[in-house]
Amino acid sequence: MRALNFTGEQLVFRSDYPVPRPRAGEALIRVLMAGICNTDLEILRGYQDFRGVPGHEFVGVVEEIPDAETRRTHSHLLGQRIVGDINAACYQSHCDYCQRGMHTHCPRRTTLGIVDRDGAFADYLCLPVENLFLVPEGVSDEEAVFVEPLAANFEMLEQLHLKPTASVLVLGDGKQGQLAARVLALNGCEVCIVGKHPEKLALAAEVGAVPYLLEQSETFQLPEGRRVDAVVECTGNAQGLELALKLVRPRGTLLLKSTVADKSTINLAPIIIDEILVQGSRCGPFAPTLRVLGQKRIDVQPLISACYALEDGLEAFEYAAQKGVLKVLLKVS
Amino acid sequence: MRALNFTGEQLVFRSDYPVPRPRAGEALIRVLMAGICNTDLEILRGYQDFRGVPGHEFVGVVEEIPDAETRRTHSHLLGQRIVGDINAACYQSHCDYCQRGMHTHCPRRTTLGIVDRDGAFADYLCLPVENLFLVPEGVSDEEAVFVEPLAANFEMLEQLHLKPTASVLVLGDGKQGQLAARVLALNGCEVCIVGKHPEKLALAAEVGAVPYLLEQSETFQLPEGRRVDAVVECTGNAQGLELALKLVRPRGTLLLKSTVADKSTINLAPIIIDEILVQGSRCGPFAPTLRVLGQKRIDVQPLISACYALEDGLEAFEYAAQKGVLKVLLKVS
Repeated sequence: MRALNFTGEQLVFRSDYPVPRPRAGEALIRVLMAGICNTDLEILRGYQDFRGVPGHEFVGVVEEIPDAETRRTHSHLLGQRIVGDINAACYQSHCDYCQRGMHTHCPRRTTLGIVDRDGAFADYLCLPVENLFLVPEGVSDEEAVFVEPLAANFEMLEQLHLKPTASVLVLGDGKQGQLAARVLALNGCEVCIVGKHPEKLALAAEVGAVPYLLEQSETFQLPEGRRVDAVVECTGNAQGLELALKLVRPRGTLLLKSTVADKSTINLAPIIIDEILVQGSRCGPFAPTLRVLGQKRIDVQPLISACYALEDGLEAFEYAAQKGVLKVLLKVS
Repeated sequence: MRALNFTGEQLVFRSDYPVPRPRAGEALIRVLMAGICNTDLEILRGYQDFRGVPGHEFVGVVEEIPDAETRRTHSHLLGQRIVGDINAACYQSHCDYCQRGMHTHCPRRTTLGIVDRDGAFADYLCLPVENLFLVPEGVSDEEAVFVEPLAANFEMLEQLHLKPTASVLVLGDGKQGQLAARVLALNGCEVCIVGKHPEKLALAAEVGAVPYLLEQSETFQLPEGRRVDAVVECTGNAQGLELALKLVRPRGTLLLKSTVADKSTINLAPIIIDEILVQGSRCGPFAPTLRVLGQKRIDVQPLISACYALEDGLEAFEYAAQKGVLKVLLKVS
C-alpha cells in the first residue's frame, strides 16, 4: 500500500509498504483523510523514538474485522465511516486501568502513529474495534479529522469543572490554542487568547475570544495587571509556562496541553506560593466531540490551511512546519 | 527588646531591638516559644530578600491591643495564650481575596518573619487580631509551636479530597515530610515515606508510615514497580520532583509542599502524558490543627531535636542546619 514512512532518519513516501494485519479484536480501516499534528512534526525530530507510519488524526472506513468473534459483536461497523481513539489498550480483565475506564493510560497500550503502531498516513491502518466511533452523516471528512485533536481539548472539561463565570486565558494561537479557545468558549465562560500572530488571533477573535498580541514574553501582562481563573498553556515551551504562572490568579488553574519534549529550566515556586492547581491533559473523549461537531457548534473549516494528496505528503509536512500555517490535511482515498 | 536580626549579611543577636508597634486592628504579642523552619534557613541564604527579625512558628500571649475599637471587639484575647496565622492581610471590603476567604493570598499581605513584617525570634511581635487563635489549656507550648507548620499540611486536606482508600507516598523524611505523614495518615489512608535517613524513617514508621530507604534517586522504585495515588513532594529539589513523577500513577496527584527557591531543570512531559494533577500548597487552616492537637491525635514531641534560649539563637540556627536534625525550638520567655 501507499504510506509515509519515518525511517528514524527521514520521512519517505513508499508505494510498497505492507498492509497492516488486524490482531484479534481489531479492524482493518481504509483511511479517507488524515491531519498533520505538531506531534507528527516532533516525531520527525525524534519524539518517542518512533519508526514506521506516523499519523493519528484520521477518518476512515472499516474494511474488515477478520476475527470471527469480534466480527459477530461489531458487524455494524463494517463499511461504516469511523474515527478512532488512538490509544490501543489491552482491554484485559486483569488490567486495572482498562477496568477503571482509564484505557488511555493502559500500561500495555500502543498509540496510533506514535508508539509501536503504524498510523494514518497510509492507505490502511488497524485499531481495536473498541476504539472506533461512527461518524454521523452530517459530519464531513474534514470535520471528522478534527475529532481527535478536539477530543483532546474536551478532556479539559472532563477533568475539571470549568464554571461559566470563569475567566480563561489560552496561551498560544497555533492549532492547539485555536481548538482550546473554541472548546472552552462552549459553556459561556470568558475566553481570551494570547499569541504572536495577528492573523491567528483574528481567527480566534471571530469565535469570541478576546485577542492580545504577545510581543515580549517577559514584560507581557493583561490590562491593569489582571489575572485570570485559568490558563491553558499551548506553547509547549518553558517561557510560556513561566508567563502562564504570572497570568493565573492565586488558587487558579493551569492546564498543560502541549508536551514539552525537552527538559525545561523554570522557576516552580509560584505554583506553591500561589497554590496553583496544575492539570496535565492529553487524549480525550470522542462521543461529546462528535455530538458538538454534529450540532455545528464548532466550525473547523477556517483552521484548515491546505489539503494535499498522500503522494505529496513530504511537501505537506514541509508546509505544515512553516510559520503561520494551521492544520494541513492529507486526502488519502 | 531581645531579637535575632538578619541584616541581609548575617544573623545577629541584639538586646536593643525596638519593640514593634501594633497598627490599627493589630495586637502586641509576647512570644513564649518559637520554632526554626527550613524557610528561616532559606531566608539566611537570601530567600524573599528579607531583612529584620525572622521566625513565623510561635506561641505567645496577647499583651496589648492599643486601638480602642479593636480592643472592644477582641478583649477576650487579652492575656490569653495564642498562635497566629502568619499572613497579615488587608482585610478590606474592597479586597477580592480577603472577601472571598482567601486572605492568605491577599496581594497587600505581609508575612510574619518572611515578607515586610518582623517575626517571632524576639520578645514581641505584632499581628492582626483576626489572625489569632486561642490555644486550649491541654495544648502545651511545645505543641502550639507546631500549629503553623501542621496547619500547612492540613491545607492539603482542605484542597483535595484524599480518600481513605488512597495510597500516599511522602517523599522526604525531614521536618516537612514527618508532619505530612502524620496529617495524611489521620483519615486511614495508606501512607509510605521515602527518605535518606534510617533514623528519621523509623520515626515515621512509629506512626504507621511504611518506610523506604532512598539510596539512588535515579533507580529508586517501590516493590514491583508499584505507583501510588498521590505523592507529597517534600524534598524541594528538582531530583525529588522527577522521582515523584515516576512514583505517582497515571491520573494521580502530586502535592508540592516545599518551595524551591531556584530555577530547576526538569522534564515536565510526564505531567501531560500521565495527566497528573499537581497541587501547589502553602499555608493552612489553624482551627482543625488545634482541634487535632487538643485531641492528642498527633504527637509532635519526637520531632523536637533541641530547645535553646533566645540568647543562644545563633547556635540554635547552626544546629538546625545540621543533617539529621529535626525541629529546633527557641524558648523566649
